[in-house]
Amino acid sequence: MNYDVIVIGSGPGGYVAAIRASQLGLKTAVVERESLGGICLNWGCIPTKALLKSAQVFEYLNHAADYGIKIEGQGVVDFEAVVKRSRGVADGMSKGVQFLMKKNKIDVINGFGKLKGKGVVEVKANDGSTTDHQAKHIILATGGRSRELPNLKQDGVKIIGYRQAMNLPKQPKSMVVVGSGAIGIEFAYFYNSIGTKVTVVEFLGDIVPLEDEEVSKQLNRSLKKQGINIMTSSTVESVDTSGDLCKVNVKTEKGMEVLEAEVVLSAIGISTNLEGIGLEETGVKFDKGKVLVDDYYRTNIEGIYAIGDIVKGQALAHVASAEGITCVEKIAGLHVDPINYNNIPGCTYCSPEVASVGYTEKAAREAGYEIKVGKFPFSASGKASAAGAKEGFVKVIFDAKYGEFLGAHMIGANVTEMIAEVVTARKLETTGHDVIKTVHPHPTMSEAIMEAAADAYGEVIHL
Amino acid sequence: MNYDVIVIGSGPGGYVAAIRASQLGLKTAVVERESLGGICLNWGCIPTKALLKSAQVFEYLNHAADYGIKIEGQGVVDFEAVVKRSRGVADGMSKGVQFLMKKNKIDVINGFGKLKGKGVVEVKANDGSTTDHQAKHIILATGGRSRELPNLKQDGVKIIGYRQAMNLPKQPKSMVVVGSGAIGIEFAYFYNSIGTKVTVVEFLGDIVPLEDEEVSKQLNRSLKKQGINIMTSSTVESVDTSGDLCKVNVKTEKGMEVLEAEVVLSAIGISTNLEGIGLEETGVKFDKGKVLVDDYYRTNIEGIYAIGDIVKGQALAHVASAEGITCVEKIAGLHVDPINYNNIPGCTYCSPEVASVGYTEKAAREAGYEIKVGKFPFSASGKASAAGAKEGFVKVIFDAKYGEFLGAHMIGANVTEMIAEVVTARKLETTGHDVIKTVHPHPTMSEAIMEAAADAYGEVIHL
Repeated sequence: MNYDVIVIGSGPGGYVAAIRASQLGLKTAVVERESLGGICLNWGCIPTKALLKSAQVFEYLNHAADYGIKIEGQGVVDFEAVVKRSRGVADGMSKGVQFLMKKNKIDVINGFGKLKGKGVVEVKANDGSTTDHQAKHIILATGGRSRELPNLKQDGVKIIGYRQAMNLPKQPKSMVVVGSGAIGIEFAYFYNSIGTKVTVVEFLGDIVPLEDEEVSKQLNRSLKKQGINIMTSSTVESVDTSGDLCKVNVKTEKGMEVLEAEVVLSAIGISTNLEGIGLEETGVKFDKGKVLVDDYYRTNIEGIYAIGDIVKGQALAHVASAEGITCVEKIAGLHVDPINYNNIPGCTYCSPEVASVGYTEKAAREAGYEIKVGKFPFSASGKASAAGAKEGFVKVIFDAKYGEFLGAHMIGANVTEMIAEVVTARKLETTGHDVIKTVHPHPTMSEAIMEAAADAYGEVIHL
Repeated sequence: MNYDVIVIGSGPGGYVAAIRASQLGLKTAVVERESLGGICLNWGCIPTKALLKSAQVFEYLNHAADYGIKIEGQGVVDFEAVVKRSRGVADGMSKGVQFLMKKNKIDVINGFGKLKGKGVVEVKANDGSTTDHQAKHIILATGGRSRELPNLKQDGVKIIGYRQAMNLPKQPKSMVVVGSGAIGIEFAYFYNSIGTKVTVVEFLGDIVPLEDEEVSKQLNRSLKKQGINIMTSSTVESVDTSGDLCKVNVKTEKGMEVLEAEVVLSAIGISTNLEGIGLEETGVKFDKGKVLVDDYYRTNIEGIYAIGDIVKGQALAHVASAEGITCVEKIAGLHVDPINYNNIPGCTYCSPEVASVGYTEKAAREAGYEIKVGKFPFSASGKASAAGAKEGFVKVIFDAKYGEFLGAHMIGANVTEMIAEVVTARKLETTGHDVIKTVHPHPTMSEAIMEAAADAYGEVIHL
């Protein structure tokens, strides 16, 4: 079969690119070696949110009395049922992608895809047989996997990655989480909230180190209050897995410390899947684990494109999807603007949630902006009081000269649903005063964005 | 004392106007006959949201098994504790306004305020004594109260208004709610979810009749599934309160029906508080219960202004606040644009939540627009699946010619936090394609806005 487009990898970059290509009249196929939907649907975004929802329900149950609800007896986490629900949600979503492929008349080719000269993809099936497939345009969307450090080799049982962490046969009594990005923090929060003793070890001085410093510090306080042991400026030097419990040797600022835990979760980021996909053979340029592309995801070789985790930019599902759509629309000859990587939101779904977009205060200052900063704590929000969710705040940063909305940083209940407003505002070059004059519904948490903007201009009402 | 501004009424219109006036250097007082914060804080938005949160927690508890959480024994609603928490939240917020008044050096004059000639407000204290207070600018912000119909006279015990409904001494076993606007539906949802047998009687053909028809129909289905009895196109003709149970005589399309219930809640809208405030004496014009004002809330009498429920526009807290700020900024000589009443969001906090802004589909067609309509159901959203909240949808309406964002109508979990994005987008005259190209974080419910916009243009990915 001769295709217009073959996409290698069916994650949120690949399958979205394929659907958009098909919508635009291009004959399209995706190559997938595992389940449709990639890591995001099967081992990432979606199943973890299912786990976190179970944790949230358990927390409501534990605090039911605060809301006037009494429980005779006690709540118990059925760990197997929690994991089973999460797997069910992931399977349902993957079947959904299967349906979308059929509906959009996209061929799904099962196996490991590899570039094989100009316009040819070789697919190696599970039984070892290979087939060749032709396409005018080949999009690489092979994604990433849990990064491994030499001193933290994953054995999948005692030292695990995110895949095992969301599919453990039983709930561990204790866990050391290495790394405090979104993945590490979400698992730390989940396991702690269902009763596992959790320690987080972070190499840098703050947890969620990509976030604004004030958010990091607030999250640190919140998670500590929940009972998580947090060690920053600390490095795992080695893990001894020979005994019943792992002995984790941690180098701290005050010297060595030994932690004991049933399981060590390595959450130190991702490595890209560039091995064996034919980059070298076809001469596609890559550097430091990233395929080199232009603003429309074209590699140096005509007809070969790359999107998602394997190119520059944030390794996030929504970035991959946007790249896939941009790449394909350009192939189809549409007018399309390049993605603005400074307007990509990031979310961490622990409780309190964390969400942000744009410059942190530090980054804005370093970029030379003179800035106005506003902050509104949820303790002053009526909706937050009513909902029993007074933890956290919204912080906004504007350019002092022109009012440009440089960034927003939020921590609290529901902020992952609130950040889209800021992304939209920044997309349209909204100024601080536009935000202040946008009538937000009362009572909502979203009013905090308006109030934070007003705070930046000395017009805040509820502070 | 001579003031620059006296505000009569300290609801979300009045106290916000006072704070903004004080920020702008105006010597300000508020007159309040009851608790600071008015109905919104004490008997409206805030305490009801507290009750609804308790209902939500109870629902999580009842469905805990769906999330893998087991409960030994059963959950029980402690009605007194639920109400007590709600009252506590309201009291806390009212104390917060007290603090804000002090902080902003605003005098609080307790009593009933009345216009008394040019620049004079007479305040009658609880003990019957009166004092006069001078101000250059007097802002009427006296708000509203539960509207009464002759055949549905509130006795406060068997036939009640929203005030009693949020402060009942014990949970009624059965309730008839007359009227299905936001207030009626929120109480119907609350009482039904904690075990009261609830019937809603609505005069018009659909519940939440201000919402888009598709939203009304979906909410009807959802609430019926939860066990609420809903009678549309029906009128309460009379109520016999002589027995133990009220006998409610309802005229339906099929004839008369008699409902029995412990309590009847009248939720048929509000009446404005215009009595005895000196309108007639000072010659301030009003019509059909509304004080007549211009775009900056100036009445026909110089130096007298009116804001909030007593003027045209939606009787909503956030509208009152915006009007208060606009009015005061104009008084202070700032440049300020009139409020766009077509960009005011409305929210109903039952479950599923309802939120909307702008034209309904019907209203857009009636206004002569040629439109593009897009819809995205939460059943196709990954976050909704993970959260167990697949009910509902986002519907968006664009002008077919210029892409103007005419309206958005949402029903589902968290939509009251999502609507602000659309208000912001509409404020900045965002087009459909701008929304599609705004990278929303994955996985969130807010992606549904982007997908619905894409659906309107034949570009939806996940349908």
